Amino acid sequence: MADYVYGPGRTHLFVPGPVNIPDPVIRAMSRNNEDYRSPAIPALTKTLLEDVKQIFKTTTGTPFMFPTTGTGAWESALTNTLSPGDRIVSFSLGQFSLLWIDQQQRLGFSVDVIESDWGYGADLGALETRLRGDSGHTIKAVCIVHNETATGVTNDLHAVRKLLDAYRHPALLLVDGVSSICALDFRMDEWGVDVALTGSQKALSLPTGLGIVCASPKALEAAKTAKSVRVFFDWKDYLKFYKMGTYWPYTPSIQLLYGLRAGLDLIFEEGLENVIKRHARLGAATRLAVEAWGLKNCTQKEENFSDTVTAVVVPAYIDSSEIVKHAWKRYNLSLGLGLNKVAGKVFRIGHLGNLNEVYYYT
Amino acid sequence: MADYVYGPGRTHLFVPGPVNIPDPVIRAMSRNNEDYRSPAIPALTKTLLEDVKQIFKTTTGTPFMFPTTGTGAWESALTNTLSPGDRIVSFSLGQFSLLWIDQQQRLGFSVDVIESDWGYGADLGALETRLRGDSGHTIKAVCIVHNETATGVTNDLHAVRKLLDAYRHPALLLVDGVSSICALDFRMDEWGVDVALTGSQKALSLPTGLGIVCASPKALEAAKTAKSVRVFFDWKDYLKFYKMGTYWPYTPSIQLLYGLRAGLDLIFEEGLENVIKRHARLGAATRLAVEAWGLKNCTQKEENFSDTVTAVVVPAYIDSSEIVKHAWKRYNLSLGLGLNKVAGKVFRIGHLGNLNEVYYYT
Amino acid sequence: MADYVYGPGRTHLFVPGPVNIPDPVIRAMSRNNEDYRSPAIPALTKTLLEDVKQIFKTTTGTPFMFPTTGTGAWESALTNTLSPGDRIVSFSLGQFSLLWIDQQQRLGFSVDVIESDWGYGADLGALETRLRGDSGHTIKAVCIVHNETATGVTNDLHAVRKLLDAYRHPALLLVDGVSSICALDFRMDEWGVDVALTGSQKALSLPTGLGIVCASPKALEAAKTAKSVRVFFDWKDYLKFYKMGTYWPYTPSIQLLYGLRAGLDLIFEEGLENVIKRHARLGAATRLAVEAWGLKNCTQKEENFSDTVTAVVVPAYIDSSEIVKHAWKRYNLSLGLGLNKVAGKVFRIGHLGNLNEVYYYT
Amino acid sequence: MADYVYGPGRTHLFVPGPVNIPDPVIRAMSRNNEDYRSPAIPALTKTLLEDVKQIFKTTTGTPFMFPTTGTGAWESALTNTLSPGDRIVSFSLGQFSLLWIDQQQRLGFSVDVIESDWGYGADLGALETRLRGDSGHTIKAVCIVHNETATGVTNDLHAVRKLLDAYRHPALLLVDGVSSICALDFRMDEWGVDVALTGSQKALSLPTGLGIVCASPKALEAAKTAKSVRVFFDWKDYLKFYKMGTYWPYTPSIQLLYGLRAGLDLIFEEGLENVIKRHARLGAATRLAVEAWGLKNCTQKEENFSDTVTAVVVPAYIDSSEIVKHAWKRYNLSLGLGLNKVAGKVFRIGHLGNLNEVYYYT
Repeated sequence: MADYVYGPGRTHLFVPGPVNIPDPVIRAMSRNNEDYRSPAIPALTKTLLEDVKQIFKTTTGTPFMFPTTGTGAWESALTNTLSPGDRIVSFSLGQFSLLWIDQQQRLGFSVDVIESDWGYGADLGALETRLRGDSGHTIKAVCIVHNETATGVTNDLHAVRKLLDAYRHPALLLVDGVSSICALDFRMDEWGVDVALTGSQKALSLPTGLGIVCASPKALEAAKTAKSVRVFFDWKDYLKFYKMGTYWPYTPSIQLLYGLRAGLDLIFEEGLENVIKRHARLGAATRLAVEAWGLKNCTQKEENFSDTVTAVVVPAYIDSSEIVKHAWKRYNLSLGLGLNKVAGKVFRIGHLGNLNEVYYYT
Repeated sequence: MADYVYGPGRTHLFVPGPVNIPDPVIRAMSRNNEDYRSPAIPALTKTLLEDVKQIFKTTTGTPFMFPTTGTGAWESALTNTLSPGDRIVSFSLGQFSLLWIDQQQRLGFSVDVIESDWGYGADLGALETRLRGDSGHTIKAVCIVHNETATGVTNDLHAVRKLLDAYRHPALLLVDGVSSICALDFRMDEWGVDVALTGSQKALSLPTGLGIVCASPKALEAAKTAKSVRVFFDWKDYLKFYKMGTYWPYTPSIQLLYGLRAGLDLIFEEGLENVIKRHARLGAATRLAVEAWGLKNCTQKEENFSDTVTAVVVPAYIDSSEIVKHAWKRYNLSLGLGLNKVAGKVFRIGHLGNLNEVYYYT
Repeated sequence: MADYVYGPGRTHLFVPGPVNIPDPVIRAMSRNNEDYRSPAIPALTKTLLEDVKQIFKTTTGTPFMFPTTGTGAWESALTNTLSPGDRIVSFSLGQFSLLWIDQQQRLGFSVDVIESDWGYGADLGALETRLRGDSGHTIKAVCIVHNETATGVTNDLHAVRKLLDAYRHPALLLVDGVSSICALDFRMDEWGVDVALTGSQKALSLPTGLGIVCASPKALEAAKTAKSVRVFFDWKDYLKFYKMGTYWPYTPSIQLLYGLRAGLDLIFEEGLENVIKRHARLGAATRLAVEAWGLKNCTQKEENFSDTVTAVVVPAYIDSSEIVKHAWKRYNLSLGLGLNKVAGKVFRIGHLGNLNEVYYYT
Repeated sequence: MADYVYGPGRTHLFVPGPVNIPDPVIRAMSRNNEDYRSPAIPALTKTLLEDVKQIFKTTTGTPFMFPTTGTGAWESALTNTLSPGDRIVSFSLGQFSLLWIDQQQRLGFSVDVIESDWGYGADLGALETRLRGDSGHTIKAVCIVHNETATGVTNDLHAVRKLLDAYRHPALLLVDGVSSICALDFRMDEWGVDVALTGSQKALSLPTGLGIVCASPKALEAAKTAKSVRVFFDWKDYLKFYKMGTYWPYTPSIQLLYGLRAGLDLIFEEGLENVIKRHARLGAATRLAVEAWGLKNCTQKEENFSDTVTAVVVPAYIDSSEIVKHAWKRYNLSLGLGLNKVAGKVFRIGHLGNLNEVYYYT
């Protein structure tokens, strides 16, 4: 029952997820199961569904809290809104956008991939070209990762919306907000995002286990005709139980519900805007530290600097995975590995979730 | 942050799931997140994958621990082994078998439903008729719920296997063991079960969040050609990461892994056979209590009596949901509602998981 | 690190202390240490000192929360108010009153012991005789255990006060409320109690570790001239730190402070009067059960029946300690042993603290 | 029930006590009460009493685990070995030695105080003068604080023993090891310490609540004739219950016993010598940091540098308490205040207990 490796002192967790859980949330989750069909759990769920909309900055969206991970949330976003064969435009700029594209392809969509070099943001010029050429509206959805966790690149969602509007294009805008929502500026309603999603183990600072998906009215409408096969991830079952007031088509994690309650309470107590400002401050501080170390940021343009994760390029003669291994063994310090194209070349510092300064510098 | 309803004293949880979590497991889970790409989590996962096979009584099976619920585990079992349009035989005998059949139909299989009246076991005679008439082997799978949680009916899996063998039928045998595995006698290898599955919040006595699916070599083989669309639930991604020794295609719940470790340790300390005997003893005791109250068991035949859940029929002039409501409000006691056809007619006592006598009688 | 004895299911704790801790309190205490000289701990302490007065029903008393047990609280009550050689009257009626008398003697007081047979209440007639004969006021204090935990006997404190008043006797009234305060009707101000004390592990339903002593203005006045040697238990040091607003002359248990906060919140949410009524109901129910078992209550007179503990007399041919041992080994059920004069003859059921009905009967 | 002050991120606790509790210990303590008269608690206590001797480096000593603080442990050490009026020599070199001397005086001993300027170690030359002049052996005990927590001064206990031996002086050697034992090199048997004591919230890294006192055979012998009044702190009662095998004269904290078990397990897993080396490394690192900041150590001589606490002298124009306040409010960082003579002049960094490097420098 013991932990695998014991070293004195606390573990210092600076991967971009799963992130540190605040102690009040750990406490709130330290509990026995409860009957999810009792009056208590639906009452709790109701407040959560209402309050979770705030972190998406939506009043018109409908949230779904799936017992799953971000990968499952991706699948729910796609299968509920699209039909096999549908053409979608998707940006490839790092390991996580790549994985989402792989999923899109395996789910049977016709994916029009727009590539960027790793370290660069989504190529919106290429999107504009596509939109300009699509007067027939064959593009059913634009899929974009708000913050690419592999390279520490934040994309400009507002610009995507402006392009869609400029071309009066009806494509759905599906956004992976896994490493952005609740940490970076994200505005579902204002930016016309149709489906946004995140995972509980990211900026919400909970354990893994909730894939939170939020659907715009237009997305809900699309769900009525989307032909992708889905059962576990089907919004329809949730909507049916929402109407009945029992909320859950199958058993939720009681602990995660109480944890989410405690986590949202902390976020609202600090104020979502303050949370975002704190991430901006800590992100800037991390970049200054990297600079002071004489190292380079993997992110090439300042406009894409991420306030939740920094990928640090190491000198060519060093294997970045050795740094990560040493930090873990010697200092109880977890850093993120470089993935795929940047394996061995970068290590990543996660600076999202419930953090403050002393973690970074004294 | 407070619980919804406060009453002094402990809550008494006797629904058939989610069930009581032993205190050592609650303690083991009361922890911060960890990097799942560190050396510690793969090492922990490796022991879990090895040990979890014991509760399925398999040495040849391959387990998958999905971050999902039983419903997701169902979906994983079906989509990895079957192709759209495949004919499957499925038994309907209560709410949960009904829900699985609904999923089977929505996933595009051709479901040959064998109905039983609620309170009765699976109609194996009807299965025999199907098998006898299927010399062309159009039946690709037989799907059966080992223990129907809605009516407290346990089916004879060994008899199903013997029928398949008698007719030398190659259909896969897919078993929902959600309210049986780790509580009732279940033998994956001996009974030739091809896919067995359970959820962490049942007899394993954990929170909801792990859908554990175990595949026989024959099922793994079938997965290579099964054409059902799947990504999140795809065994292939897991097998790829098993080979790499990192085990997880996406983020697992760190807490549930430590919880499962602690839970398995408790089960092995007691001894799986003793756990099963304890369920038999508590099941028999519950039935004696029901008899002593002058009430009837919803289960019609002794051979189907369930040692994990008892559905108690109330007199016609009483609404069973009022009993459940009263127990909850007045005694902090959670009982299971009657579902669907038996709504208002039965209430259910869950007697599975980490329990002992004092809960039942003094 | 494992628990000593493992049996499946929960432990059922029915000793008269330490008692069951409500889950919200266990959660509130599951935390790291904090600096007790930071602004947070004094602020928390201030609310606790104010609120804890309510459970004593005093507005004029001054509470002290010693990091100690009930035995330490006894010592604090005596040494702060009395001088070596002082004559005190003390009632002996069971193991705990006996232990207090032993302490009184070892601390050098001249103890005038009034004996009762075990199972009977304090002999107030004998007290009256003492008071009548003490026109010289040689008696400096009357010491009485409100509820004798060994025999389940509750004494009439109001009657003691009336006797003292009738004889206009200035003796201090020192009360051990260890198994009464916060469970039985107790009124410090109304009954003119000068020092009352309890332990955190009794009706407050916390872990052991706080000996809470409450002093009347008259007791505080007496403390100024009391010559008993004391340092750790000295009220003077606390009063000095109360004035400075830092509250603690030495390090308190951070966890117990947060636990007490959570515990008081639960008590106030239920309402202290409802807590007392609940104890009356559960006490009566326990006595009915004992009667139904055909067994006798050790307490001889109905007026002394205790609503927090019932000592059950077993038939002469049974050793009660065997019952206690069997309950523990076989049912994870903890009952209290018979002590001293009633060893082997009684076992004790504790029914105090955060309990409700289902623990007792179904 | 909420924490008093909320700031995002963890609290960084660097006071010299109470110190950080390792997560496995917090988990081990997150539990309900248990009957301390059941077979489990004595069995657990027995292992603790045996194992705790290792941290004192004694095989002949007898440990007592009082439910109290360090102040109570002081009182237990003194009252069990000395009689009122006894002459004792005691070193004054900081706030904590001062408080112990105050206690010694209030307990009625004749205290011969040897003063040092704050920042300097115990004046052993003055002790030698006393011993040389005491051929009549009027000095009954020498009391010394191993590590003065207020100034970060470690005294040379071995030198004290050598002086006593050189003069063949039979005085008892009583040592406050509160901020040293389990962190600094301490050898009870080898150095002939007669009573050593510590508190659970110091290097043992537990919550406050256990005052652990260890008595040499000579001290136990002295206890037989010591006339100081004592009940709660009396070793005699413990020895009586040790013999009976039930161990506790009154209720212990169940949680602290399990916590101590887990804490000792971690210490033994790391190895006590490694723990001491780690403190040496972190102590040296802290002093280097202080030097790098251009600040002075309050400790005047290198031989007295403490590896558990560093008192840092701030420039005259700064009030050190403002630094402490700012660290707490702005960075969730707790530092120790300057006390008494050095109030406003120093702040203190606690570097004892379950810590590792990342807390100090990256």
